[in-house]
Amino acid sequence: MSILVVGSVALDTVETPFNRDEEVLGGAASFFATAASLYSQVNLVAIVGSDFPEEHLAFLRSRPINLDGLQIQEGRTFRWTGRYHLDMNSRDTLDTQLGVYAGFHPVLPGSYLTSDLLFLANIQPELQLEVLQAAPRARLTVLDTMELWIVTAREKLTEVMKRVDVLLMSEEEVRQYTGCASIFAGVRELFALGLKYVIVKQGSYGALLFGTDGTYFSAPSYPLEEVSDPTGAGDAFAGGFLGYLSTVAPQADGRYAADDLKRAVVHGNLIGSFACEDFSIARLRTLTVDEIAERYQRLVEYSHFDDGWHTRSSM
Amino acid sequence: MSILVVGSVALDTVETPFNRDEEVLGGAASFFATAASLYSQVNLVAIVGSDFPEEHLAFLRSRPINLDGLQIQEGRTFRWTGRYHLDMNSRDTLDTQLGVYAGFHPVLPGSYLTSDLLFLANIQPELQLEVLQAAPRARLTVLDTMELWIVTAREKLTEVMKRVDVLLMSEEEVRQYTGCASIFAGVRELFALGLKYVIVKQGSYGALLFGTDGTYFSAPSYPLEEVSDPTGAGDAFAGGFLGYLSTVAPQADGRYAADDLKRAVVHGNLIGSFACEDFSIARLRTLTVDEIAERYQRLVEYSHFDDGWHTRSSM
Repeated sequence: MSILVVGSVALDTVETPFNRDEEVLGGAASFFATAASLYSQVNLVAIVGSDFPEEHLAFLRSRPINLDGLQIQEGRTFRWTGRYHLDMNSRDTLDTQLGVYAGFHPVLPGSYLTSDLLFLANIQPELQLEVLQAAPRARLTVLDTMELWIVTAREKLTEVMKRVDVLLMSEEEVRQYTGCASIFAGVRELFALGLKYVIVKQGSYGALLFGTDGTYFSAPSYPLEEVSDPTGAGDAFAGGFLGYLSTVAPQADGRYAADDLKRAVVHGNLIGSFACEDFSIARLRTLTVDEIAERYQRLVEYSHFDDGWHTRSSM
Repeated sequence: MSILVVGSVALDTVETPFNRDEEVLGGAASFFATAASLYSQVNLVAIVGSDFPEEHLAFLRSRPINLDGLQIQEGRTFRWTGRYHLDMNSRDTLDTQLGVYAGFHPVLPGSYLTSDLLFLANIQPELQLEVLQAAPRARLTVLDTMELWIVTAREKLTEVMKRVDVLLMSEEEVRQYTGCASIFAGVRELFALGLKYVIVKQGSYGALLFGTDGTYFSAPSYPLEEVSDPTGAGDAFAGGFLGYLSTVAPQADGRYAADDLKRAVVHGNLIGSFACEDFSIARLRTLTVDEIAERYQRLVEYSHFDDGWHTRSSM
């Protein structure tokens, strides 16, 4: 099984109220690939400049990550600088330097065309569309996006939404895109576009899974005492979600079993929680499958309750 | 088993973006008693004015609610007027008329002194303290409060906190009282006061249960398509929580089993969700134990996931 991802590989400078880290490995595709490569092979489509540090390439090569689709072009790597507020739930983008991403067009090596799962990280909808058209055989396509594209490229984004199976959005993004105050009403509008599943990310509150088949699942978040750096948590969520799905087979009708989709959302939350524990991909690069399994078990203890309660004679 | 509650009985005027209801039965003790009386007998301590409608008294009498501790005094009943914002998560208090509450001192009839459980709804900490001192034999004491008392009566409130077992607080109230950005750090400060359990209410995101014995439980919220009126949801939560606990016995050491406390928080969330479905106590007064059991079962389906996931050979 293999997972194709298209997205950014970047150098991030991140300020939190307690720390600052400069020009570390960042970008949605980096977080996603680091996370998903814990489960299966990842086929990466991205671009970096000639200034991209060799150590990052060496790290990516050390994982089951295929870099045939990573373009290395004369020029500067994409750079992002952000600052988190005291509550770590909101941030300001201080600087964005597109560098070589300005003229980027994804090229899919032949070996990528049989990728089983496809993740379109939050780059321009036009580029997402190019990749969708070039890799039409994936059994599940998953789309992420961001406020910028909802505001500046709504039409193209809608075109992409109409062609994928699963959409990842934060609560605020659902409200922003649909104009609905109610998440339930918003998700119904999204379903009208043809999506099969919508996953509504609720930050430190967990995530909700909605399916056109009536699936509804509220996944608890893993409790973290302290968040070091939430950058990339959403991409790590996607890595856990698709990573888990890459380890199971869909049913005869081509759909994944509801239980597997639930487990996948739980993996998403868990991997997202690990991502927050350190800057950049620092925690994800040391993460082991045993650590995921241990946290999975703890989340069961933290969130499950007696499933057999019924009225008693005393009532 | 019986549950003593002291709190407000009021006439509420509530505006939402879609509706308005005038001078309906409100007040923390009304919501709590209506909810908790689905499980056990409630001993009500409160005051109303001579203008308090007979129909409300008739309703309270129609339930297993003991009104011996309800003072009816010449004057006006407490009135509250509030308006909800479009998202229904925040509201403005437009008017508060204390009426007979201005000179209120709770008096506990002898028949109340053997109450097994005690709920101090969000009235002035001084009055909460009076009731605590008058009813020292309860096996579990639960305290609710509100921003007003954190700001204006912090010292007295702290005195009450030091004498009860369980504290109910919203996330914002925990941050406000402790000054901690992290809920985990905040709860540790609260435990230092001697509390055994803290329940952190997260509105539409559910609730967290923390215990000094290491208990941690994240209770999912019951998903509501639409919220008619969130007034009283917190008091209904307390009614479900204490109501459920009134149907089970504590362990030999006097503490409730962790599984029972978890179920109790789930009941709190469920009863809170019912309260939001209509104005005033309208939904709670028609609620049946079978409806609670049905919603309980659905919440299991909505939130539980495979509890046996472990690493597989394919990973």
